[in-house]
Amino acid sequence: MLVVMKDHARAEDVQHVVDLLTEAGAEAHLSQGEVKTIIGVIGDREVIYTLDLEGLPGVEQVIRVLKPFKLVSRDFQAEDTVVRVGPSSIGGGAFGVIAGPCSIESEEQMVSTARAVKAAGATMLRGGAYKPRTSPYAFQGMGVEGLRLLRIAGDEVGLPVVTEVLDVRDADTVAEYADVLQVGARNMQNFMMLDELGTMKRPVLLKRGLSATIEELLSAAEYVLKGGNRDVILCERGIRTFETYTRNTLDLGAVSALKTLTHLPVIADPSHASGRRELVAPMSRAAVAAGADGLMIEVHPDPERARCDGPQSLIPVAFSSLMEDLRPRLALEHKRLGVDG
Amino acid sequence: MLVVMKDHARAEDVQHVVDLLTEAGAEAHLSQGEVKTIIGVIGDREVIYTLDLEGLPGVEQVIRVLKPFKLVSRDFQAEDTVVRVGPSSIGGGAFGVIAGPCSIESEEQMVSTARAVKAAGATMLRGGAYKPRTSPYAFQGMGVEGLRLLRIAGDEVGLPVVTEVLDVRDADTVAEYADVLQVGARNMQNFMMLDELGTMKRPVLLKRGLSATIEELLSAAEYVLKGGNRDVILCERGIRTFETYTRNTLDLGAVSALKTLTHLPVIADPSHASGRRELVAPMSRAAVAAGADGLMIEVHPDPERARCDGPQSLIPVAFSSLMEDLRPRLALEHKRLGVDG
Amino acid sequence: MLVVMKDHARAEDVQHVVDLLTEAGAEAHLSQGEVKTIIGVIGDREVIYTLDLEGLPGVEQVIRVLKPFKLVSRDFQAEDTVVRVGPSSIGGGAFGVIAGPCSIESEEQMVSTARAVKAAGATMLRGGAYKPRTSPYAFQGMGVEGLRLLRIAGDEVGLPVVTEVLDVRDADTVAEYADVLQVGARNMQNFMMLDELGTMKRPVLLKRGLSATIEELLSAAEYVLKGGNRDVILCERGIRTFETYTRNTLDLGAVSALKTLTHLPVIADPSHASGRRELVAPMSRAAVAAGADGLMIEVHPDPERARCDGPQSLIPVAFSSLMEDLRPRLALEHKRLGVDG
Amino acid sequence: MLVVMKDHARAEDVQHVVDLLTEAGAEAHLSQGEVKTIIGVIGDREVIYTLDLEGLPGVEQVIRVLKPFKLVSRDFQAEDTVVRVGPSSIGGGAFGVIAGPCSIESEEQMVSTARAVKAAGATMLRGGAYKPRTSPYAFQGMGVEGLRLLRIAGDEVGLPVVTEVLDVRDADTVAEYADVLQVGARNMQNFMMLDELGTMKRPVLLKRGLSATIEELLSAAEYVLKGGNRDVILCERGIRTFETYTRNTLDLGAVSALKTLTHLPVIADPSHASGRRELVAPMSRAAVAAGADGLMIEVHPDPERARCDGPQSLIPVAFSSLMEDLRPRLALEHKRLGVDG
Repeated sequence: MLVVMKDHARAEDVQHVVDLLTEAGAEAHLSQGEVKTIIGVIGDREVIYTLDLEGLPGVEQVIRVLKPFKLVSRDFQAEDTVVRVGPSSIGGGAFGVIAGPCSIESEEQMVSTARAVKAAGATMLRGGAYKPRTSPYAFQGMGVEGLRLLRIAGDEVGLPVVTEVLDVRDADTVAEYADVLQVGARNMQNFMMLDELGTMKRPVLLKRGLSATIEELLSAAEYVLKGGNRDVILCERGIRTFETYTRNTLDLGAVSALKTLTHLPVIADPSHASGRRELVAPMSRAAVAAGADGLMIEVHPDPERARCDGPQSLIPVAFSSLMEDLRPRLALEHKRLGVDG
Repeated sequence: MLVVMKDHARAEDVQHVVDLLTEAGAEAHLSQGEVKTIIGVIGDREVIYTLDLEGLPGVEQVIRVLKPFKLVSRDFQAEDTVVRVGPSSIGGGAFGVIAGPCSIESEEQMVSTARAVKAAGATMLRGGAYKPRTSPYAFQGMGVEGLRLLRIAGDEVGLPVVTEVLDVRDADTVAEYADVLQVGARNMQNFMMLDELGTMKRPVLLKRGLSATIEELLSAAEYVLKGGNRDVILCERGIRTFETYTRNTLDLGAVSALKTLTHLPVIADPSHASGRRELVAPMSRAAVAAGADGLMIEVHPDPERARCDGPQSLIPVAFSSLMEDLRPRLALEHKRLGVDG
Repeated sequence: MLVVMKDHARAEDVQHVVDLLTEAGAEAHLSQGEVKTIIGVIGDREVIYTLDLEGLPGVEQVIRVLKPFKLVSRDFQAEDTVVRVGPSSIGGGAFGVIAGPCSIESEEQMVSTARAVKAAGATMLRGGAYKPRTSPYAFQGMGVEGLRLLRIAGDEVGLPVVTEVLDVRDADTVAEYADVLQVGARNMQNFMMLDELGTMKRPVLLKRGLSATIEELLSAAEYVLKGGNRDVILCERGIRTFETYTRNTLDLGAVSALKTLTHLPVIADPSHASGRRELVAPMSRAAVAAGADGLMIEVHPDPERARCDGPQSLIPVAFSSLMEDLRPRLALEHKRLGVDG
Repeated sequence: MLVVMKDHARAEDVQHVVDLLTEAGAEAHLSQGEVKTIIGVIGDREVIYTLDLEGLPGVEQVIRVLKPFKLVSRDFQAEDTVVRVGPSSIGGGAFGVIAGPCSIESEEQMVSTARAVKAAGATMLRGGAYKPRTSPYAFQGMGVEGLRLLRIAGDEVGLPVVTEVLDVRDADTVAEYADVLQVGARNMQNFMMLDELGTMKRPVLLKRGLSATIEELLSAAEYVLKGGNRDVILCERGIRTFETYTRNTLDLGAVSALKTLTHLPVIADPSHASGRRELVAPMSRAAVAAGADGLMIEVHPDPERARCDGPQSLIPVAFSSLMEDLRPRLALEHKRLGVDG
């Protein structure tokens, strides 16, 4: 941490900061110019992050050079984390494709989708049983019955299944049915849920919040790792900006940046990001080229009658074409689909 | 809902939309120009919000003119909702001032703060027992012990107490100690928590999410009202923008706009919004002038040693001056402090 | 400037940075911790701002503590700048109200508006002769003929007139007719225009760009002052955010912050910011309370037939009520309307 | 245009809107539901865009379904525009790579860079003679002397040259030296400059503003085409968001969307967007995969001593590797480098 004092700060104000730092167990290191005094602070992350010095007399700016996370960092672990789930894996050269409908609607819908996406090369099956909806009047998902149908469909085709935990109280129930537990964008900073998932034995798929910075996403992942669960997949799904033509703005620079900052696998969700079917394929291609370790894609056998996110869902044949299109692109990135056999 | 078809859309595409609408139980009403066909849709909110027509062949744009909320709307209830808690009230001319430290740290800290803010004219006492922190290494709050200290301090001075529910599993426990249950910005779209609070007998203080639109804030409140709990206080606390000088951007236009859109009381939190002590007073004055029904202000007896949000906390004497400064301003708005006696 | 080196940066990388600094004429001041080395840099603003060290080997972060502006700063000049134009003034306790239509449409429209706003207490008259419009198919303004009508109307009632310079080539022509030259939000970083206006003898009204930071606004003003023109009025007119209910988000925190950072007068434009007539009055009141030195308000005798910005224009009688409403509020701020006599 | 009336709007308010429309020469088409009345409006783009009905009594919302642009639209011209400059072309399968330093500093710097980028496969040479800088204390470019050096370097290697017009008064001078005239992000809505460039015989490279929507970018291009100049290249260069890790957020979804909306070529500038050298290559790859028709990349022989944008500049050898890396990727997109022979 650096404390930049105001121009010509008074000696007693400088001393006061030093005293507070010492009192808190940190080490202060002075650097005095003619106009500016700068105080370098050495100490534990825990200490640094509980000190609020911004408002002190004579203090101009406090700059934290120590990141608010540690375990997720490439400095802490250089080699890629590979998250393995049954026959599937994501990270370290294994490319995951998680496909399926936004919401689970019926056994027939799930099983037919599962067959189609498996045939096209998907490595995991997705489907929402609990749906976060802006309006309380919108369809909220099938709940436990949905989880059951998802499991049936996954087992039918031999794909691990991914679904969202919307309520921390349901985490155990969801974990009974699902292989990977998804944390939605709106819950990225639901710290109690992150703590809970940190103690569980299921990989976590953590979606970036709509206005979360890269640092906040990594700090959220740190909560899970700190609890003991090292299997976290990060997901860029579009951020909220002033642009209204696309539903959100897919931040592929964040995908590339995350690959340098963390060892965790990073995937992209072009369906939610764009909100437009015609942009799903080009954004999938771009995500692969940006270095993503996987994709999350909405596929529905009958998007017109989908109870959620129809406009951005691919029909199975379009998904299949996209998968074909991606194969030579994965080769260029020295990646392969993350499935056994 | 309006469905705007593409220029010269084919008759069968138009018919297809009409058929889907009829199938779903809505009523379609055609308006055909030479170039454009527009389909007006009449139906229940529940039906409208489960129809996703954006991706259909020939459809250019779907515009929802029916709002995703109802109970919170001024159209539904014209007169102001007044939230009453013991001797305090907010709304309908009663101005609430909720003051106290960001985090509860000790009995001495809480009781001395409570006395100071009560003396200055605050109408409720705040303090955080569970703190949402970006970094898992930052201070996370005292938990139940904190709740107990908050209750003691409130009882000591006769002020109702407000505190955040961070985990839906703690809602009942928090409700044992607190008079008003706060939903933080990061949980504004934690729909399961909103559902839960909708069934409880405690007023809810709902903070706007960092990147939530006005419509999303109102929809979140609708979840609580739909559950049966009519006592919701909305709080504008700054939104996330590109500006970095202030911590967030206080959106006072949203405060004014909300006052026209909803009957619920609307307060502002200038402390979190600005993140700078010197801006708390001017932003408080501006919020009053914008039509806010109350303020939420961080006060700490020793900000330098505060475990959270020191830089934006007022010391008691500064808070007291601010309250003095606000009195003639409230009179101009035909409002009075929301306290009995 | 601070150069923060990466953890355990190599001695030669540190030396390399020091060498480059010395070569450029700056002074390097080392501060070495066990893990981190920080280099403090002392030098002229000109030198500091032409050094790009971010990409050097071993460099983690470069932090500029020296602001990119000087003449506009309160550190440079503590007392408020008062901009005087004929009988009107803005700043230092004088509150300016600049009122009139978005675009100049006819002599009758301008003169009737001028009479109405003058009677209500406005201190300057505004009107656009050159209109920046997103679409080339929208009305672009009357040009020189508009300037002539504006001058006639101003002279008729004895109010100084303010109008926008849209094209640097028109600056001299505009200056023949207008008393204050406005730089629109889209031209805030049109540096050539700022340079030109810096050499002219007319006060400049500089509007904040839609996505300009406070620092960028001040830097833009610095261009004008550096050219020799000290009469700059800053104007907050709403920034672009994700919110769509209001046209833009009025950033009153920026108004308060600017008052601490600069000696220049700061006004607010609630009409453009909100884009909704019903929000103009509350946002005007809030701007006064936030410490603004003035307001810019759109007034049109017949908003329904206005060729531009009708939805946010006040009719004269509404403007008059607003002015009445503001009087006791100005008194609370120890301000008076900036007009002689 | 659609005018959505408020629930149960009064018949006279509806009639009033209809009268105003008729008066303005537009055609009104009523569609009356039980609760809502909607008025469809047919008329010229010019008429529609000068009508402001939002503030009328009884009007809830005005929705423009007619785009504010025409000539740039794919509906107007289905086949791709190919911009040809000497031996180089961009669009319609021809991929342009515009490389060179941020600012022109010396003949030696320009000629060596020109040789290096030409050898690596660049199709045009770039270099800034006039630099838009936030601070007036930063290096502002070499001016005309810079233009001369750019021309020398381009001629030396046979590459067309691209440079920015910062001041509309310099447009002719710049056009004497340069083959393509660049409009920077800060001037995207400098409509007078767009008008001027619309009358010139040089292709225009139009960069998206930092907070410009896709629709605004297309409307800006429409200004140029409306003037008679059909050779416009659009450039996505990153938008301003809340994220601070990258300098801006490269919006590749906009690139894909633009390819569906317009026939004009669309390129990306990963250097300015990311502001970090290590992200230039992955973002270039992603832009190709997103469907871009070209790239604009900063290359400098000695980035450490660059007077501008050093941190994001590639050295020639890194640029050369990137070009090698892109070749198989262009093949996948059925594109080839846009150079003769």
